[in-house]
Parts: sequence; C-alpha cells; structure tokens
Amino acid sequence: MAEIFDPREIEKKSFEIITQRLNGKVFDGGRDSVIKRVIHTTADFEYADNLVFGGDATDVIKRTLKGGCCIVTDTNMALQGINKKWLNEWGCKVKCFMSDDDVARKAKERGITRAMVSMEKACEIKEKMILAVGNAPTALMAADKLIKEGKMRPEAIIAVPVGFVNVIESKERIINGSVPFIAARGNKGGSTVAAAICNALIYDAAEGK
Amino acid sequence: MAEIFDPREIEKKSFEIITQRLNGKVFDGGRDSVIKRVIHTTADFEYADNLVFGGDATDVIKRTLKGGCCIVTDTNMALQGINKKWLNEWGCKVKCFMSDDDVARKAKERGITRAMVSMEKACEIKEKMILAVGNAPTALMAADKLIKEGKMRPEAIIAVPVGFVNVIESKERIINGSVPFIAARGNKGGSTVAAAICNALIYDAAEGK
Repeated sequence: MAEIFDPREIEKKSFEIITQRLNGKVFDGGRDSVIKRVIHTTADFEYADNLVFGGDATDVIKRTLKGGCCIVTDTNMALQGINKKWLNEWGCKVKCFMSDDDVARKAKERGITRAMVSMEKACEIKEKMILAVGNAPTALMAADKLIKEGKMRPEAIIAVPVGFVNVIESKERIINGSVPFIAARGNKGGSTVAAAICNALIYDAAEGK
Repeated sequence: MAEIFDPREIEKKSFEIITQRLNGKVFDGGRDSVIKRVIHTTADFEYADNLVFGGDATDVIKRTLKGGCCIVTDTNMALQGINKKWLNEWGCKVKCFMSDDDVARKAKERGITRAMVSMEKACEIKEKMILAVGNAPTALMAADKLIKEGKMRPEAIIAVPVGFVNVIESKERIINGSVPFIAARGNKGGSTVAAAICNALIYDAAEGK
C-alpha cells in the first residue's frame, strides 16, 4: 500500500477498508457510523456482531447531545478521548468522578469500587444525562440499581465495560432494562470503545445525520 | 458467578480467569505480566500471539523507568491511562505533544500528521526516553526515520498503533530496527494497549520483578 500522510485521507481510506472487509455492508438505523468507528478504533471486527442497540438509542443520544446534556463516564481515558469541539457548541459537559477524593474515600470506607460511588454522585446532576461506561461493570450494576430505585434517569446508556468479572452480567442487565442503550455483548469493550461510540454520534449529530 | 465488589478481588479473579483461559500458560522473560495485562484491558486473547518482544525490552524498560526517564506517547488517552504513582517516585515524566499548538500548526503547514511532528518535537528531550505509540502509525514511521538519522535515541519502543493504513508496515519497521521493542503484530493495538503495557512494567518494576 502506498504511504498516505494526510490525516483526512488516512481516515477516509480506513473506513473504506473497514467497509470492504465487511463485504460492503451498511448497517441501518444510525448504527453504521457507530459500528465502523468502533472497528476503526480497535481493528476488531467482532464488534460488528457484538454491538447491540435498543430503544432507538442512536437517535435519542444525537437529540440529547444537540439539546445540551452531561455525558458521565466511569473512565478518565474516555473523558480524554471524547471530542469536545461540538459538545462545547451545544452546551454539553463530560464528567468523570473516578478521581474525586470524596469518591475514593467513600469507596474505601464501604469496600466497594469507586465506579459504584461515582454513579451515586452522578445522581446529583441536574442536566439530561448520557452514561458512557467503558471500564467498570460495577458502574453499570450501580446505575441499574439507581435507575430501578428512581434515583437516576439517564436518557441513554453506552454500556461497554471490558473484562472477566461481572462484565457480561452487568451488560445484560442494561440490555434487559428500560433505558435506551448501546452495549457490547460479551467480555469486550473499553475506554476507547466508549469514546468511539460517543464520537461517532457526535460527528453524526454535527452533520445533521 | 458470585458478585465481587472489592476492586483488588476483581483484579485478582480477572487474572486467574485469563490464566485459566490460556490453559495455565505462564510466559517467560518478563512477558507474562505484559501479555496478561493487555488481555485484561481488551478481553482479546489474540494478544497472546500478537505481542512480540525484542532486544530484552521488558528488562530495558523496567531499568530505564527506575532510573528516571521520559515516556513519550502519541495519544492523550494513553497519557491519561499510565499510572503516575511510581513514575513520580522515580522522577519519570510522561509527555504527549499531540495537542500542542506548534505541533498542530506545523502539521497543517506541511500536510502531515501531528503524530509525525510530535516525534520531531520529542527529539528535543534530554532525558532517557521510552516511546509508547498507541495510535498513529505515522508516529512510528517518523520515529524510525529519526532514529536512522541519529536524531532520536529511545531506550525502547512500545509499538502498538491500531488501524488499517500504514499500521502493519510501521510496526514491522520497528520490529526490524535496532531499538528494543514491544509490538502488537497486525492491525490491533490502541491507547489502552499502550497504557496497559506501560502499567504492567511499572507494576513489575515497583515489585522488583
């Protein structure tokens, strides 16, 4: 392959290769950008099958973003990776409470994860909220409980924690819950996946898709 | 599986599951922690085969870390994800020049990627250097060129960019080069993989492994 050094050309060519390797497949219902950007981020084609969508999540998230909202994530890496340019224009914030001193202290006192405490802290947010969980299944479990108790009302949940303990179960709870979701079935996911899903929908919303 | 909420228990159990799923395999030469932490971060067992090591890289990196050095990365997400606790103790820094105004300006002027310009900027660093490339193959290509020109002398290179354009070729250049390396063969890699490799070696170095 000839070397390409223009960043826009690299991205364009990358998405062409991804579509080719998916035998030209175009996913419907707003899913195409999300699935292909996650594959672009991971080079892992399993996400073409792993990613599941419910409750019109792509439209809900794009509408919520453009109306102004707070994205709450359980990972500082995802916070770093989410593109802020359009979020700032739309009056959106992105927050991660994982490194907050009060969260660390309460988690230690109670012998639970900071992710669980950070979801409790997220209940104090007054704006419309999108949850983007890319690391800790315990964040999803806490969110599921808080939603059922009526203490948390996210517009949508991006449920892509990664790992081997509680991970599959936590995502299935969200898939079987009442809130629109985008989830990665199985063990896979991560901060880059969470950020990629947010960015795909931010770019689509910015383009009026 | 019974639910576990203690973070140390979750990590311990996760590594047990990873080792089980690798049929009890323990990798030699300091590779075990690196390979298993990358799998822990991605839930992707392909890394057991993809990750290749050269020039005694794990020992070189651990020694370089404990002696004080600068880790230079091409991604702000990896910068965010690398654990700073021991690095601070050892007098190490972590730098990413991707968001620097001068880097963005020069890249635009020359029609090349910011990653390439950021590697040129890294040549100004006086400390011993470890490169951790988790995103841009063009960063690796620029580093390879700068090393051959004698302008850059990293102690080791973590070469795990992800994607479909220039990616495989850029990693093969590092694998065939003169600098100790840890690389992910093929298209896979990413910011979380780069951070996981750094963290595995930081934790091993802290434990005197």
